[in-house]
Amino acid sequence: MADVKGILQEVQAGRLSIEQATELLQGASMLDYATLDIDRARRTGFPEVVYGAGKGVEQLLGIMERLREHQELVLVTRVSEEQAQRVLERWPDIQYEKEAALLIASREPLRPVRKGYVAVVAAGTSDWGVAQEAAWTIRCFGSEARVIADVGVAGIHRLFGRLEEIRSASVIVCVAGMEGALASVLAGLVDIPVIAVPTSVGYGANFGGVSALLSMLNSCSTGVSVVNIDNGFGAGYMAGMIHKQMSKPV
Amino acid sequence: MADVKGILQEVQAGRLSIEQATELLQGASMLDYATLDIDRARRTGFPEVVYGAGKGVEQLLGIMERLREHQELVLVTRVSEEQAQRVLERWPDIQYEKEAALLIASREPLRPVRKGYVAVVAAGTSDWGVAQEAAWTIRCFGSEARVIADVGVAGIHRLFGRLEEIRSASVIVCVAGMEGALASVLAGLVDIPVIAVPTSVGYGANFGGVSALLSMLNSCSTGVSVVNIDNGFGAGYMAGMIHKQMSKPV
Amino acid sequence: MADVKGILQEVQAGRLSIEQATELLQGASMLDYATLDIDRARRTGFPEVVYGAGKGVEQLLGIMERLREHQELVLVTRVSEEQAQRVLERWPDIQYEKEAALLIASREPLRPVRKGYVAVVAAGTSDWGVAQEAAWTIRCFGSEARVIADVGVAGIHRLFGRLEEIRSASVIVCVAGMEGALASVLAGLVDIPVIAVPTSVGYGANFGGVSALLSMLNSCSTGVSVVNIDNGFGAGYMAGMIHKQMSKPV
Amino acid sequence: MADVKGILQEVQAGRLSIEQATELLQGASMLDYATLDIDRARRTGFPEVVYGAGKGVEQLLGIMERLREHQELVLVTRVSEEQAQRVLERWPDIQYEKEAALLIASREPLRPVRKGYVAVVAAGTSDWGVAQEAAWTIRCFGSEARVIADVGVAGIHRLFGRLEEIRSASVIVCVAGMEGALASVLAGLVDIPVIAVPTSVGYGANFGGVSALLSMLNSCSTGVSVVNIDNGFGAGYMAGMIHKQMSKPV
Amino acid sequence: MADVKGILQEVQAGRLSIEQATELLQGASMLDYATLDIDRARRTGFPEVVYGAGKGVEQLLGIMERLREHQELVLVTRVSEEQAQRVLERWPDIQYEKEAALLIASREPLRPVRKGYVAVVAAGTSDWGVAQEAAWTIRCFGSEARVIADVGVAGIHRLFGRLEEIRSASVIVCVAGMEGALASVLAGLVDIPVIAVPTSVGYGANFGGVSALLSMLNSCSTGVSVVNIDNGFGAGYMAGMIHKQMSKPV
Amino acid sequence: MADVKGILQEVQAGRLSIEQATELLQGASMLDYATLDIDRARRTGFPEVVYGAGKGVEQLLGIMERLREHQELVLVTRVSEEQAQRVLERWPDIQYEKEAALLIASREPLRPVRKGYVAVVAAGTSDWGVAQEAAWTIRCFGSEARVIADVGVAGIHRLFGRLEEIRSASVIVCVAGMEGALASVLAGLVDIPVIAVPTSVGYGANFGGVSALLSMLNSCSTGVSVVNIDNGFGAGYMAGMIHKQMSKPV
Amino acid sequence: MADVKGILQEVQAGRLSIEQATELLQGASMLDYATLDIDRARRTGFPEVVYGAGKGVEQLLGIMERLREHQELVLVTRVSEEQAQRVLERWPDIQYEKEAALLIASREPLRPVRKGYVAVVAAGTSDWGVAQEAAWTIRCFGSEARVIADVGVAGIHRLFGRLEEIRSASVIVCVAGMEGALASVLAGLVDIPVIAVPTSVGYGANFGGVSALLSMLNSCSTGVSVVNIDNGFGAGYMAGMIHKQMSKPV
Amino acid sequence: MADVKGILQEVQAGRLSIEQATELLQGASMLDYATLDIDRARRTGFPEVVYGAGKGVEQLLGIMERLREHQELVLVTRVSEEQAQRVLERWPDIQYEKEAALLIASREPLRPVRKGYVAVVAAGTSDWGVAQEAAWTIRCFGSEARVIADVGVAGIHRLFGRLEEIRSASVIVCVAGMEGALASVLAGLVDIPVIAVPTSVGYGANFGGVSALLSMLNSCSTGVSVVNIDNGFGAGYMAGMIHKQMSKPV
Repeated sequence: MADVKGILQEVQAGRLSIEQATELLQGASMLDYATLDIDRARRTGFPEVVYGAGKGVEQLLGIMERLREHQELVLVTRVSEEQAQRVLERWPDIQYEKEAALLIASREPLRPVRKGYVAVVAAGTSDWGVAQEAAWTIRCFGSEARVIADVGVAGIHRLFGRLEEIRSASVIVCVAGMEGALASVLAGLVDIPVIAVPTSVGYGANFGGVSALLSMLNSCSTGVSVVNIDNGFGAGYMAGMIHKQMSKPV
Repeated sequence: MADVKGILQEVQAGRLSIEQATELLQGASMLDYATLDIDRARRTGFPEVVYGAGKGVEQLLGIMERLREHQELVLVTRVSEEQAQRVLERWPDIQYEKEAALLIASREPLRPVRKGYVAVVAAGTSDWGVAQEAAWTIRCFGSEARVIADVGVAGIHRLFGRLEEIRSASVIVCVAGMEGALASVLAGLVDIPVIAVPTSVGYGANFGGVSALLSMLNSCSTGVSVVNIDNGFGAGYMAGMIHKQMSKPV
Repeated sequence: MADVKGILQEVQAGRLSIEQATELLQGASMLDYATLDIDRARRTGFPEVVYGAGKGVEQLLGIMERLREHQELVLVTRVSEEQAQRVLERWPDIQYEKEAALLIASREPLRPVRKGYVAVVAAGTSDWGVAQEAAWTIRCFGSEARVIADVGVAGIHRLFGRLEEIRSASVIVCVAGMEGALASVLAGLVDIPVIAVPTSVGYGANFGGVSALLSMLNSCSTGVSVVNIDNGFGAGYMAGMIHKQMSKPV
Repeated sequence: MADVKGILQEVQAGRLSIEQATELLQGASMLDYATLDIDRARRTGFPEVVYGAGKGVEQLLGIMERLREHQELVLVTRVSEEQAQRVLERWPDIQYEKEAALLIASREPLRPVRKGYVAVVAAGTSDWGVAQEAAWTIRCFGSEARVIADVGVAGIHRLFGRLEEIRSASVIVCVAGMEGALASVLAGLVDIPVIAVPTSVGYGANFGGVSALLSMLNSCSTGVSVVNIDNGFGAGYMAGMIHKQMSKPV
Repeated sequence: MADVKGILQEVQAGRLSIEQATELLQGASMLDYATLDIDRARRTGFPEVVYGAGKGVEQLLGIMERLREHQELVLVTRVSEEQAQRVLERWPDIQYEKEAALLIASREPLRPVRKGYVAVVAAGTSDWGVAQEAAWTIRCFGSEARVIADVGVAGIHRLFGRLEEIRSASVIVCVAGMEGALASVLAGLVDIPVIAVPTSVGYGANFGGVSALLSMLNSCSTGVSVVNIDNGFGAGYMAGMIHKQMSKPV
Repeated sequence: MADVKGILQEVQAGRLSIEQATELLQGASMLDYATLDIDRARRTGFPEVVYGAGKGVEQLLGIMERLREHQELVLVTRVSEEQAQRVLERWPDIQYEKEAALLIASREPLRPVRKGYVAVVAAGTSDWGVAQEAAWTIRCFGSEARVIADVGVAGIHRLFGRLEEIRSASVIVCVAGMEGALASVLAGLVDIPVIAVPTSVGYGANFGGVSALLSMLNSCSTGVSVVNIDNGFGAGYMAGMIHKQMSKPV
Repeated sequence: MADVKGILQEVQAGRLSIEQATELLQGASMLDYATLDIDRARRTGFPEVVYGAGKGVEQLLGIMERLREHQELVLVTRVSEEQAQRVLERWPDIQYEKEAALLIASREPLRPVRKGYVAVVAAGTSDWGVAQEAAWTIRCFGSEARVIADVGVAGIHRLFGRLEEIRSASVIVCVAGMEGALASVLAGLVDIPVIAVPTSVGYGANFGGVSALLSMLNSCSTGVSVVNIDNGFGAGYMAGMIHKQMSKPV
Repeated sequence: MADVKGILQEVQAGRLSIEQATELLQGASMLDYATLDIDRARRTGFPEVVYGAGKGVEQLLGIMERLREHQELVLVTRVSEEQAQRVLERWPDIQYEKEAALLIASREPLRPVRKGYVAVVAAGTSDWGVAQEAAWTIRCFGSEARVIADVGVAGIHRLFGRLEEIRSASVIVCVAGMEGALASVLAGLVDIPVIAVPTSVGYGANFGGVSALLSMLNSCSTGVSVVNIDNGFGAGYMAGMIHKQMSKPV
């Protein structure tokens, strides 16, 4: 992939051996049970993230160790308390966000590196964990995240009470379960992109979040796009990327 | 069914023959291709309604003729323009509500017989037909129906502009397609029962109204119950029955 | 939202400061992890209800404490025995309805404040818990609730034996799992609104209550509207609201 | 594969050539575009049936001609009026049942050859076609079929009025769309096997008959088994086979 | 329901009081938490069956005790080993069929009371439990049941090896999971009604038995009807009823 | 909702009558069959858009006429050729984009008002229409849109051939049907937000776009969010909004 | 992609300009509305295939013309009769297989170039078209295809009559609708890979082929893999590729 | 059904008794709770495989013991660690592959008996177990299997780095969860048949592997066929069979 022309010019000029060029064009570093994508930060602007769910502790420690050598920041998602405890025994300085189920191993403390903020707006108290996962992912991008919780449409005046703060954000993440109506109402009130996260909160014909997912995909308001059910990380990533994109010179 | 004890007492007293009693306890009048439920008005408070869709014109005329002999009011739903034209050729005085796809053959003109009204609140212009079907069904119950259209949550201030009128109703019918968020928002603002009708308006992952149906079933607001997709008649019936019930001496 | 005109007149008259008016128009009281909707009783006729499932005990106690300060009645749904035990340790006077999985903290004893009653009709013995949830919710509204259990259509004569009592109700809640046929049969026999609750009782192609849900939405009888699967609280709320509505002066 | 032992004995005895035996053990008569199963009547008690839908007229005529050579009875299902007209031009004596969409080419007139009858009970007037398809299939089996129409549970007294006639049947076919509740109610009232046919009658969340199908599969009453949606032929076949089985010497 | 005319004649003749007649016409015996259908054996030919799953032991004992007073046979389905142990402590003479998860409390030993038998044909070893549930239900009807196991289509010659025994049965129950192809193959080889039971055996896109259920509903062979997933009891009931019906004088 | 405080201050100062303030706080302009949201451009940054599908020509002309009075730009989506022809008869200067099925009535010619561009990347030739709908919507936002078509993963080198152009964009819209794999591959190669549009292109188990929709929601690459099936307008809107946001001073 | 090393060596040696190398590494030839994948035959062993459905005639002619320049063989699938007629007007020598809906433009006549054959086994006469699509695709690969039709499991002896011919094949394509049981039965009888194609033949709970699809995915027999519903082309392609692979020197 | 003609000739020649011939034509060896298909290796080229999940240890030991008498190789799938431990206590020499959850009891050590290999390509580290199940099944066929792990499309250069090794394989098994895009990308790059295995890896709208399953069925690349979700065994079996077929003389 990469800069094909440039690499070829280096080869033609004799400044790059064929072996080196092949490696660069392939860009993969093969390990035993995993092929770590150490090139990702350069390519996509964010280092490889580890999906923690279901991984054994040894495997988790192994992958984290290797990644920490190459990356400024190692983010692990869906980390159980038990997994976290074992990781913290080894590296006590790592940050564990229990509500967000995230492990964050950053060489530098996380702090906003650009102006503006992302508003993470959550409908109910049960959406809290997903909202936190989004917020901390945003912070890993170097953006500020503000969580505005429990402003679902059952008592819509609560939303209006926070509208000014929401409207001043650069990007909005909207977290809602049950019928997910908050995304539609919100998007009709702002001129800011809304990344909607359906949550599996609810029961009966909620079908594990499908109800909210369909609502958000069918929103009568424009300016909404959707990520997978309970995927606070994905929404935070998308929002962080947009916010970061905004501070680039166009 | 009916009043078992009463009929038995009449039999015991010799005032009712066994044949008559059997007939009364069975209560059915068997015809050739249909068993008309002429007892329904007494039993459920509303005469038998004819489902027009797919019926041949001759069959439709036959059923209507027979029912008009026994009932003050004959309501036919899902009537195509072609069907209506043929029926009106025979009985030019019958009322055809084209938008609602209803034929209404009433001996007396429809007019409100009780105080208060039912608010039929519709989210978009495409929900108009279903809202009209609900409204005319309500009027057949002898209740006033007011249609408040195009107040969906994409521009939620439109809803607030009509809120006073909605709050003064006795019952609310809420008609919405796409993500059906209007029902949740509305129910969070009023102390009146909301009958929600999902409509098949929308496309893609709307799945013919399933998206709105699930939204309404999973409403985060209480005080909402739901009828079938596009079933304006069913919602109007339910609302009419509740409104009628309210004027009975408790 | 509230009474926009009235608040504006108060402002114009100088009887209300801009800060107070803003607060009233917003009506939200922001807490740390929840935005309690203390305005709800005035707006919707019933105070905020707490959804207990999945809440930690500390969080539950915190929310209940705050709500008890503002509300005559605090209702908590889906409360496990373990949660209940912990709450009762703190406030031994609170009522715990184990079969209904409800905690009821009422300043005044619950008793009917209006005439008439709501009939909660359940098809099988397995629907008992959902029926109890509906019944106690109705009682929280100040209405009488009578549970009529195990009258499913497999032995339809059992239903007819209770029909008189059902027909004398003001509203009916119908609870049924499996194929949910009871709602259709019942609605064809009465002139009273029927709120149907599908339950997840059954197995195989029952799909966790979907079978009964679809049955009830497709009922061939009119006068039925439906709430979410196993949502006895929602049905009781709807029935209570209708019954309460009936005693208002129209 | 027929009577293996017997054929082998014939081979051993030299009364059957290997070629003949092979053919008999294979039992297939290969044609150009179809492999007609002329052995079926012997094997399953009913000759091969032709599924008419989508077949070109030439192909239909070809198959029917060949089958008429070998079979007493040729039954063609799902025949459009246009297909029927073309077939009747060729063989004017063939019976076309338009409502049932069946062509029946029988060498002998259809008439009951055994005692008793099958009751085909249909919920609504829209179920009429499927009921007729079932009834004529039963008649092809040499059994009497009686259609009892429009006795759905919305007015359940209509069913009770016909119950005596239904209870005297040997087998019951129950045809119902919408929520299909009739099957459950019926099966709870009789000691006769009920073959249930869900129909695609209904709209919205009916999903082309899925609602009635699930209802019937989840029936709270025992003694019900189900065939595919709108499959009147399949139900009639099953009922005819059971009725025929009853007259065999056990 | 019952014999309306007869009861009325008794009333007219003064041989039956109105109270007694009312009770007979209602036929329900109301208990505290259940309305036992003691009239069922007379009406449907089989006494009320108890669904054991999820019932508390006390409730189970209570219901069984009451039913044993009125019924020759009490059948309890879906009984866990733990439930069974508790019941057997009280009534050690009751029969517990562990593989079938059935409790059978019969005054007389179960033995065939009519000629012929029902063949219960199962595709794989994993379908064994469901097949046993069907077989014992058939035996409760007083019919002989023969289980023919592990003859699925992956090795179809195994089926042919048992075909003679299957063909000599009066009714067939076919139990199969995965793709459920056995039902189609079997029905194409016999002239006997086939009651098909899809089982939830399988994984992945099997969806808990939906794959086999759809297969059986869409069988290309006629003479198949279907019961709910894993519903061995329902299939055995249907088969037993058909077999019993065959020995009635037509 | 608007600026509540400001309006109240105007009222207090007597510079705004209560009627005017009420109107402003409600912000709705009620018409006969529609409540036009003329406030939308101020609130959400884009004027109200008309959904053309299913609208009668008269209704369409009426709405467009009214909107053109208030808005610089009137965009109508899902316009059939027949509808377009009728509208163009009335206003010949309106732009009709046939492939995109859009009518664009802009007072000023559409041209980019900010730097950078949005890349609309489409997998196959069949995705062309949806891609055009997205591109023209983006142009309505005042952004440049470049369509890069037919670069699906079946021949992935085609994508790499265009990668430089894609990587230089500010936002990416990715349009793909069938299995929708393009979104995942693309997002793994860039550091730019990807708005994915599943299309209904495909057949069989594609289920009208559900296959691509699920793929995109489950993308193993981060930085992807999704809009409804075939919703090129929604994706273009989201992309346009993000691009516009990027040129605001943070 | 291609042979990266080789191209780089050519560049280093000065035998390939950077422009040429870039083009080769990109391998894409960009046209106006399509990016033809002329490299495909070399890469995947089969030239690019055109999906005809929904393409305008002009577009179709354009693509075919360009591809015919580069490819020995141009295959167009899902071609309507109307499309075919227009194409044949231009190139009368092209082969149109109407039943298979394929256009085949081959410079050389299609004939088998390797030993052995692929058996295309179809369950019913309605599966004929899909079987033909598979067979002609196989022939385009230079393999012989033999169609064995109408051997579904309803009369399983028909299958056994053709088993010898099927067992002598190198690969099997199995085409079946309804419950798709043929694939399981077949795979249990042979030691040859079976590619299964579910067809949308059937009705009711067949759900457009989903029933057969699930059956085939859940086959109790091993040695079966599945392609999309009605995808005869895909199955023929897979079978042709396997057969071709078999004649390569291993 | 074996060689019908040959067996018949033996009978005719008197060299085979009728009993023996019957047994051979039936070919089934009936046991108590299972009908072992000892004829399978001859018929399908691979001995009967045991599905371990859910089987009791005694039953498992019994079946294994019997099969080991007749088969060179006994393969047991889905074996839990607990089951394995018990089996190994009895036969310590049996091979247990924990990651693949397979027990392999082979008389001869497994080693490749033909040239070439099967590439098992897995998208993520979570697909490892399914990939191992496929690989060991292939080895049981006497083919070499090479696992190439963690080369999913999120970092597509990792795939290109291994492409040469993949392209040199004879058959490919592709294992992927989430959106399963790897199958499409891979099949577009090779001229080798790809057997795709969707895995249940993922969450939210992944629906237990349905997302990947639909992706693979709808692949825009040709040369892909699919097995059930998580069915590594089925894919390995299919690949092994194809590879074995390739070394037969055509």
